[in-house]
Amino acid sequence: MSTLLSPEELEAALRAIGAERYHIHHPFHKILHSGKASLGQIQAWALNRYCYQAHIPVKDAYVLARLPTPAERRAWRTRIIDHDGEDDKGGGVERWLKLAENVGLNRDDVIAMKGILPATKFAVEAYVNFVREKTVLEAVASSLTEMFSPNIISERMSGMLANYSFINQDTLAYFTPRLTQAKRDVEFALAYVKREAKTREQQELVLDALRFKCDVLWVQLDALYLAYVEPRMVSPGAFIPEDARDHVGAGKETARRG
Amino acid sequence: MSTLLSPEELEAALRAIGAERYHIHHPFHKILHSGKASLGQIQAWALNRYCYQAHIPVKDAYVLARLPTPAERRAWRTRIIDHDGEDDKGGGVERWLKLAENVGLNRDDVIAMKGILPATKFAVEAYVNFVREKTVLEAVASSLTEMFSPNIISERMSGMLANYSFINQDTLAYFTPRLTQAKRDVEFALAYVKREAKTREQQELVLDALRFKCDVLWVQLDALYLAYVEPRMVSPGAFIPEDARDHVGAGKETARRG
Repeated sequence: MSTLLSPEELEAALRAIGAERYHIHHPFHKILHSGKASLGQIQAWALNRYCYQAHIPVKDAYVLARLPTPAERRAWRTRIIDHDGEDDKGGGVERWLKLAENVGLNRDDVIAMKGILPATKFAVEAYVNFVREKTVLEAVASSLTEMFSPNIISERMSGMLANYSFINQDTLAYFTPRLTQAKRDVEFALAYVKREAKTREQQELVLDALRFKCDVLWVQLDALYLAYVEPRMVSPGAFIPEDARDHVGAGKETARRG
Repeated sequence: MSTLLSPEELEAALRAIGAERYHIHHPFHKILHSGKASLGQIQAWALNRYCYQAHIPVKDAYVLARLPTPAERRAWRTRIIDHDGEDDKGGGVERWLKLAENVGLNRDDVIAMKGILPATKFAVEAYVNFVREKTVLEAVASSLTEMFSPNIISERMSGMLANYSFINQDTLAYFTPRLTQAKRDVEFALAYVKREAKTREQQELVLDALRFKCDVLWVQLDALYLAYVEPRMVSPGAFIPEDARDHVGAGKETARRG
């Protein structure tokens, strides 16, 4: 347990965490891409995930502030450009707003995060605080869920395009550039943790950081599942879809029982 | 909307928030005190709530550090004594560990918070960060869920004593002193917010702080409900009770549907 892992062994251990804990295995993801989600469930997903999307450049700014060299900061800065855009052109955050509007949400309500679930806020805040307060090695490592994102993105895009008449390529414009951006980001972050984790203890911190980040994503889908799939317990003050009464129990059969 | 509330109106507005959002209204609380909870569900509650209990003196230390006068700090310090104990005698945190041991959990596992739900961690962390980063007025206001705790404590104690053969007065020794401690704490905190909230904007911050704190408590029961009542989706790595397979769907009828 206490010997240093080779860079390849570290990468394999990271991939094993994704295989067990990445939210591609969450029942809510399955409902979403399989066509079983109601419009209201998709709206709730778009609304809540906006909170996550809107905080990505914030957490990346904290990482940026903590990376020690101009070269590392230049590499990381592209992430902020991806999400905040450049010149007059919006980036990923703007594209997520388009997605939300496309599925029938009011843009200003989404920006104000009106009705988002408290659990979403807490999970996103935990992520921002993690990159601010842990070591920069752990902060970089927590981004490594991107190693697994191409699979979930292609499953989500092909499934949602095929299964919902109100969703088209424009709706999902957020995801297309993510496929290439994530590949580039992972190259940097994976090389960074392989190089900078110089003791077994540091390697364990890297693995824990990825487990933590998987939890951040998982908890968001847990909260959506509880509130909007089963048993439909919506926290006081949170978003209630207009079609909530028509789809009680949708996707029940996909629930995992512990 | 923008005129200053009288101290009595502010208190009434605080009580109205409790009437709507305090976790006494959560289905998990109802299952717990009504006798419908399995041993495994009670263990999951004791384990996860330990994380909250263990952080109470931590959040109170942050408030202590931010109160400006010795008199205010003296008043607040009693909260830390209540939870951490005095001389060789443990306080509320120790009594919670006794509760956890009494329902069959391993003390060291509880202290290590082995298997607690990520959503619990995130909610508790959000509370600690709230008192550290918001104004001290908001930090004090966030403690005001104690205005409503005597009711939930007496409902919980009488219900649990009546309905579970394995629970006795000793198991619930944590709660008895809380009834008097909470009364004293509320006197200070309620007087403080009535006096220090000098504008309507500050009064709104006080009300929002209480809403936030209700969310912190609510989300913890949401997470327990999803993982251990219905649909029994346990996050990867979280506690799985030994009796999980015997009680699937317990308390189903109490679920609120949004």
